Amino acid sequence: MPAKDIFHDTVKNALIKEGWIITDDPLYLDYGGVDMYVDLGAEKLIAAQKDQQKIAVEIKTFNRPSLIAEFHSALGQFLNYRLVLENIEPERTMYLAISEDVYEAFFTLVFTQKAVDKYQIKLIIYDTKKEVIKEWKN
Amino acid sequence: MPAKDIFHDTVKNALIKEGWIITDDPLYLDYGGVDMYVDLGAEKLIAAQKDQQKIAVEIKTFNRPSLIAEFHSALGQFLNYRLVLENIEPERTMYLAISEDVYEAFFTLVFTQKAVDKYQIKLIIYDTKKEVIKEWKN
Repeated sequence: MPAKDIFHDTVKNALIKEGWIITDDPLYLDYGGVDMYVDLGAEKLIAAQKDQQKIAVEIKTFNRPSLIAEFHSALGQFLNYRLVLENIEPERTMYLAISEDVYEAFFTLVFTQKAVDKYQIKLIIYDTKKEVIKEWKN
Repeated sequence: MPAKDIFHDTVKNALIKEGWIITDDPLYLDYGGVDMYVDLGAEKLIAAQKDQQKIAVEIKTFNRPSLIAEFHSALGQFLNYRLVLENIEPERTMYLAISEDVYEAFFTLVFTQKAVDKYQIKLIIYDTKKEVIKEWKN
């Protein structure tokens, strides 16, 4: 099983432990002439709901040799998916899920912090071993 | 020679024909703990100058099977590079160079137009056969 699939389930399990219901796996998005579902190179989104809150989560494993290359694609995918959601389902909030290890190694850098601030990337930081969410960063 | 290298030279030649001087190939960027030069997965930037104008150009070939996957990575790379430039060399304007074919096939879609507007992506559209710039979209 590729690593990205392992973490896909890790994040799902962590959300379920916090009382979220997984409503779509994957979340199908099609808007403005672009079918996001055929995006072969990208991890699929999941959608979850808890009470009246709805979220979409991009799960990014960052297992390529270059963290910055992985971040380019994670950022572009996040912003494109969020743009689609703003147009078709604006009440759903978009998150990027990353492991605690990746957060410590890359998201604490000055550059990455600036990018996260500037593009208002909401993060879910998860513990890969315990399968729990460590922090929501809004 | 991979296709992306062919178009790299195509864009350089097209710029030179318009009187630009290529000042950096590749343009080295290192900021805030991230060395963009080691970005193995991404096309390298070139820098050019004409009179007092300075530009950085990301040349994206879009030769993967999924145009939307390629667009995710192009967008993320563009925004990350632009963010670095804003911090270290704000007078340099960032452009994304795409072929006329890719523009017609993908950048005329409603979704892509919204993304280009929202993230203020400046485009250079080039003719791959004549090696000339067809249009600057600011």
